[in-house]
Amino acid sequence: MVRKPTPDDRFSFGLWTVAWSAQDQFGAASRPVLDPWEYATKLAELGAWGITFHDDDVVPFGADDAERERILSRFKQATDDAGLTIEMVTTNTFSHPIFKDGGFTANDRSVRRFGLRKVLRNVDLAAELGATTFVMWGGREGSEYDGVKDVNAALDRYREGIDTVAGYIKDKGYDLRIALEPKPNEPRGDILLPTVGHALGFIAELEHGDIVGLNPETGHEQMAGLNYTHALAQALWSGKLFHIDLNGQRSIKYDQDLVFGHGDLLSAFFTVDLLENGFPGGGPRYEGPRHFDYKPSRTEHMQGVWDSAEANMSMYLMLAEKAKAYRADPRVQAAFEESGVLELSQPTLAEGESLEGFLADRSTFEDFDVDAAAAREYRFVRLNQLAMEHLIG
Amino acid sequence: MVRKPTPDDRFSFGLWTVAWSAQDQFGAASRPVLDPWEYATKLAELGAWGITFHDDDVVPFGADDAERERILSRFKQATDDAGLTIEMVTTNTFSHPIFKDGGFTANDRSVRRFGLRKVLRNVDLAAELGATTFVMWGGREGSEYDGVKDVNAALDRYREGIDTVAGYIKDKGYDLRIALEPKPNEPRGDILLPTVGHALGFIAELEHGDIVGLNPETGHEQMAGLNYTHALAQALWSGKLFHIDLNGQRSIKYDQDLVFGHGDLLSAFFTVDLLENGFPGGGPRYEGPRHFDYKPSRTEHMQGVWDSAEANMSMYLMLAEKAKAYRADPRVQAAFEESGVLELSQPTLAEGESLEGFLADRSTFEDFDVDAAAAREYRFVRLNQLAMEHLIG
Amino acid sequence: MVRKPTPDDRFSFGLWTVAWSAQDQFGAASRPVLDPWEYATKLAELGAWGITFHDDDVVPFGADDAERERILSRFKQATDDAGLTIEMVTTNTFSHPIFKDGGFTANDRSVRRFGLRKVLRNVDLAAELGATTFVMWGGREGSEYDGVKDVNAALDRYREGIDTVAGYIKDKGYDLRIALEPKPNEPRGDILLPTVGHALGFIAELEHGDIVGLNPETGHEQMAGLNYTHALAQALWSGKLFHIDLNGQRSIKYDQDLVFGHGDLLSAFFTVDLLENGFPGGGPRYEGPRHFDYKPSRTEHMQGVWDSAEANMSMYLMLAEKAKAYRADPRVQAAFEESGVLELSQPTLAEGESLEGFLADRSTFEDFDVDAAAAREYRFVRLNQLAMEHLIG
Amino acid sequence: MVRKPTPDDRFSFGLWTVAWSAQDQFGAASRPVLDPWEYATKLAELGAWGITFHDDDVVPFGADDAERERILSRFKQATDDAGLTIEMVTTNTFSHPIFKDGGFTANDRSVRRFGLRKVLRNVDLAAELGATTFVMWGGREGSEYDGVKDVNAALDRYREGIDTVAGYIKDKGYDLRIALEPKPNEPRGDILLPTVGHALGFIAELEHGDIVGLNPETGHEQMAGLNYTHALAQALWSGKLFHIDLNGQRSIKYDQDLVFGHGDLLSAFFTVDLLENGFPGGGPRYEGPRHFDYKPSRTEHMQGVWDSAEANMSMYLMLAEKAKAYRADPRVQAAFEESGVLELSQPTLAEGESLEGFLADRSTFEDFDVDAAAAREYRFVRLNQLAMEHLIG
Repeated sequence: MVRKPTPDDRFSFGLWTVAWSAQDQFGAASRPVLDPWEYATKLAELGAWGITFHDDDVVPFGADDAERERILSRFKQATDDAGLTIEMVTTNTFSHPIFKDGGFTANDRSVRRFGLRKVLRNVDLAAELGATTFVMWGGREGSEYDGVKDVNAALDRYREGIDTVAGYIKDKGYDLRIALEPKPNEPRGDILLPTVGHALGFIAELEHGDIVGLNPETGHEQMAGLNYTHALAQALWSGKLFHIDLNGQRSIKYDQDLVFGHGDLLSAFFTVDLLENGFPGGGPRYEGPRHFDYKPSRTEHMQGVWDSAEANMSMYLMLAEKAKAYRADPRVQAAFEESGVLELSQPTLAEGESLEGFLADRSTFEDFDVDAAAAREYRFVRLNQLAMEHLIG
Repeated sequence: MVRKPTPDDRFSFGLWTVAWSAQDQFGAASRPVLDPWEYATKLAELGAWGITFHDDDVVPFGADDAERERILSRFKQATDDAGLTIEMVTTNTFSHPIFKDGGFTANDRSVRRFGLRKVLRNVDLAAELGATTFVMWGGREGSEYDGVKDVNAALDRYREGIDTVAGYIKDKGYDLRIALEPKPNEPRGDILLPTVGHALGFIAELEHGDIVGLNPETGHEQMAGLNYTHALAQALWSGKLFHIDLNGQRSIKYDQDLVFGHGDLLSAFFTVDLLENGFPGGGPRYEGPRHFDYKPSRTEHMQGVWDSAEANMSMYLMLAEKAKAYRADPRVQAAFEESGVLELSQPTLAEGESLEGFLADRSTFEDFDVDAAAAREYRFVRLNQLAMEHLIG
Repeated sequence: MVRKPTPDDRFSFGLWTVAWSAQDQFGAASRPVLDPWEYATKLAELGAWGITFHDDDVVPFGADDAERERILSRFKQATDDAGLTIEMVTTNTFSHPIFKDGGFTANDRSVRRFGLRKVLRNVDLAAELGATTFVMWGGREGSEYDGVKDVNAALDRYREGIDTVAGYIKDKGYDLRIALEPKPNEPRGDILLPTVGHALGFIAELEHGDIVGLNPETGHEQMAGLNYTHALAQALWSGKLFHIDLNGQRSIKYDQDLVFGHGDLLSAFFTVDLLENGFPGGGPRYEGPRHFDYKPSRTEHMQGVWDSAEANMSMYLMLAEKAKAYRADPRVQAAFEESGVLELSQPTLAEGESLEGFLADRSTFEDFDVDAAAAREYRFVRLNQLAMEHLIG
Repeated sequence: MVRKPTPDDRFSFGLWTVAWSAQDQFGAASRPVLDPWEYATKLAELGAWGITFHDDDVVPFGADDAERERILSRFKQATDDAGLTIEMVTTNTFSHPIFKDGGFTANDRSVRRFGLRKVLRNVDLAAELGATTFVMWGGREGSEYDGVKDVNAALDRYREGIDTVAGYIKDKGYDLRIALEPKPNEPRGDILLPTVGHALGFIAELEHGDIVGLNPETGHEQMAGLNYTHALAQALWSGKLFHIDLNGQRSIKYDQDLVFGHGDLLSAFFTVDLLENGFPGGGPRYEGPRHFDYKPSRTEHMQGVWDSAEANMSMYLMLAEKAKAYRADPRVQAAFEESGVLELSQPTLAEGESLEGFLADRSTFEDFDVDAAAAREYRFVRLNQLAMEHLIG
């Protein structure tokens, strides 16, 4: 049996996850929609520490100020009562048809202006509620047809939008960082900033890139056939892993949003290994919440919603325990040695070695025993099998 | 009939393309291997302007200096005689088994040192031959198993390697820029810097990133289900589109290296449209060679090799002609207008508009007619259909 | 300019295509919903010959008999007035949450019974309206988790369901054939009968398989990375191509339902070539309607709906014209010869050749010139390039 | 620790797996090639029960009869001495360039004749060595370009070829069954009979289909994004699961041939669960060998080859133990009940229920409580989580 999660585990859920009514592309809602505070209370009971939301998850699009205020204060009260932290807030610029061609990169300038205002308004709310991360998923920023979107202009507008928001955060002195969430496609045919890599490249071009980082989602990288743990690693290496969205995906297909670990299990193991234990050779660590962005399957009714919320946390805890034992195993450490895993932390050039000296070192090239090096036994399969033994043995 | 290409078209071929003996993962060579100069001569006859190569394509791995010199001068003579430009040179750090775990990021430090020397040696050759681009494809930099590669250390070593090469180029004063070539997988399970985006993010962390850019390959992006034209666009937007590898790929599968346009034809049309006509709203342009990195199918014998080399150039020329007519069509320009394609070049904030002013502009948000904006007729399908009429009508 | 389609072209549309309100997984409806007869009238004006529908497209789920009758007769009158043929009818067993685990293969037997009744009721309607094809897409027949579905039992139930329906059709003497529509995934993680192949294998196990065939959809096969034209070919070869769903898909991702030809254009060309011209060596032909099952992009409003409906027909007509010219070109016929395309129609054993004779024929094996055969110039790339010249030249 | 495998486990390996020299599409061999008997001896030591091979794995293509006889008898002796069973034999019709356009479906009739003779010769060898399964992987039967292959003719030739071989087996009275091995692509752009489903549909059209079945390979189905366990299930349901090829694949990409379980681990668990425990509701069982068709990664040298061979068997044994415990757990049985897993074995129509009676049963449709059924708690996530607890808990 897995132990019950506690707030110390810092598990956090998007409100929209458990509150999803299970309406999908091909079917009507299969579950009722409760009031937002009901979900919050229940998540806290299950052991969650944090909760996150889009503006429209709590307050209906177009609600007037009084209604907005009433709902938000009721929600805030419920999270306080439940001891939940509102660690992240995000803005919905993808559901309402006004955003059908995007929020920050819509061809229609009036839509871009509206979208930017909606986001800025929500930044104030995020700061007010004490959130420290402001996620931006540009789900409608993209196109189905190459000819209808000037991608150079779109990236200019995207930069303008993000820099405006980041500049506003700085002006206001909010303790808030922006985390971009990449996705390759769905609901658009091609979404701009489709992967963690593209977002990193984009951030490098920002004026206020210092407070802009990433919120990589497991399934989004895997929808492009990419390695999620590698994505986290490069984001960490660039100092940009601000937040994470954990869930499950099985191969390249529509966005499944399964429970974390119910997709590519082996990959999930190494994701948790990285989050809990860091890189084998040390280096930057992720210190943020363990945030789940998944959907309870449409076959599930309300009991299934809570089953699935619990399953996310149980999966993480089980994998964390396995990962700890894996790293602590002397056989694994010896295998790291034999496979050269730790050797990779040694610079290629020796400390103080000049390029001239390197070029003149015949032992490195002219006299190097190429055949011996080519025959090296890396024994990567054995090392992987050790991981498997810890995972399922 | 398509016109014959001329050197003004700046078509360039990798020597390894036409020289591929058609040995693949499941089969032995199906074609003879000629001397390098024979391919060069024939490519020039077909109308190519440039040729490119890996060191090992011309000089066998491990050849002694005299042999190396003899072969290279013969090759240089042949290209000169044929009027071919050696516009790019690249290094093979993936075929020999010494590189089975990578060149710059192999766990084995002695391999990394050997690999770096091999690359630096080839930089000298590239400069000597007058090449202006030095492509680096790290095909073996990656892993099959997450536990065997410390990705943080690997990216450190990758940076060390690239910065060493770039620093060397600067020290020597060579007129040479490095172009990284991303690929998501194959021959490794996961390759580091899997997409154009990841490489852009990586370059942003380099010391000598100013002379490091991209060489995006059509099929490599498409193997991750990504939009190649968008990849070129983001590279251009970042000022990093140094070189291109054109070919064809059909969906997400093994690296097919088909003739350009024989894969996703509609995508190829918009790629050429971007290369020839630039973005609809103006902006950065690609000015380099039209370089093909493809493989003549294994079913082809020598006649088929030349058929396929010609087909690449014919496809490009046909698409370029179509793209010119598409942009020149007043109906297309009117559709750009109606669909807002050019409107995206307008900044979201007005010139001189302060954030305070923007936030106070009720017409943008509070009084904005959301329903009207949501009902906008973008008519993207009609615009796309206009492109189709130009392409095949 | 493309000519206007006429009823002789036998273009047919699903009512649900133009009537889609553009509510998707991540967003609310972006378009109004008209009365069913309004769509029918407009489609006829655009040149369509036929219309098809799910029961729930016309009559709301749960409507009483009087309401049902009223709506259906109004719809029938409209199609008659417009001169539209109702060539196919299908049943929705996937949208209502009762079907969240499937219709014919739900774990819950009472749901299976309800689903079977809903289908049988609709068979009567199909026959009454004169439809000759009854499509069955089991979009919810599947699972996300391997452990929750006994696939052997599920296939037993699927067979029971289809055989019951087919038996009913025979009993009633209806002039109606069933066409199964395969899809690999979405909305379920894995759908049963995921490809044309699996459905062919399934049909072979039916009692009433003689009136059960296929309705292959372009994008559904392509979502598994499979060749749609090959799927049509195998269905034809098996005598099972009863109906088709034409649309567009770009690579392996969510179900895009683009306009036909706006996805993989080259593949669409060869699809039309097969439909219009048959196999190069002759053989079975498809004689049914050219039916489109697509979705007008969510960015489109009502004008865009009609733009896109027209675009499907225009694309088909343009491709059909190209395909005719391609086959009629003597260079193509000569290339067929050189590439051995027609030689494949010759049996491998000669007419009347005994196996003993074949085994004793040393010229076939022992004395065969393997090297010469291995060096054959198939010139497939040249033949493909000829197709490209017809398509875009 | 995992127990050592024994012959009772009936683990079997393709000779070509451990003997792969690690030459791939982008690199030269990284390992020596031993004599065939050396691999056999070592596999037996590791606990394997069976060995399988292509003709060319043991005897070089083109060897004369004396050489062939000498090698084969030496090999047979070694397997006898080692106590290994030669359970399956297969023919290589894909490596030699003569087969570059296929064996049974090459456009060139003389190649088809040569290929058929090569296969028939090997059928005699298979029978002589006591193999009971004859696998046929048509890796080159396909095309890159739709226009170069008449698929109707190709399927005719494929049928002719398979029926000729099957008829020969019957004529000779061999105790041998043919098992077709589907693959979607690689090395051809599209391979004919791309999935288990297509092969089942094809077999239904054969004259001698009674002795023709399937050899599904894990990675081949997963390369099309399909569920391998579902593929085994449908093959079993059709009475056609004659043999299996177990290995590992991570998402949709090139054919990885990883160790079994080192790809999609959760899927591997349910594969083993099906193989060891059968369907939850009973039904057909697979009784054949547990055959591995994988490749030791190119980073491995000879020690790594044996590490990986062992890892396949260890993975299977660990998963089998987990699967046994999973099924034996009363909580799982209770969850099967609650989730309706066993209810699916109940026919939809009651025993003896007439269609008239069913249509008249108002409780099934008219009076059915749709809302209650729609709100059913299937609790699939909980059941899946129970599997996860057994797998990694």
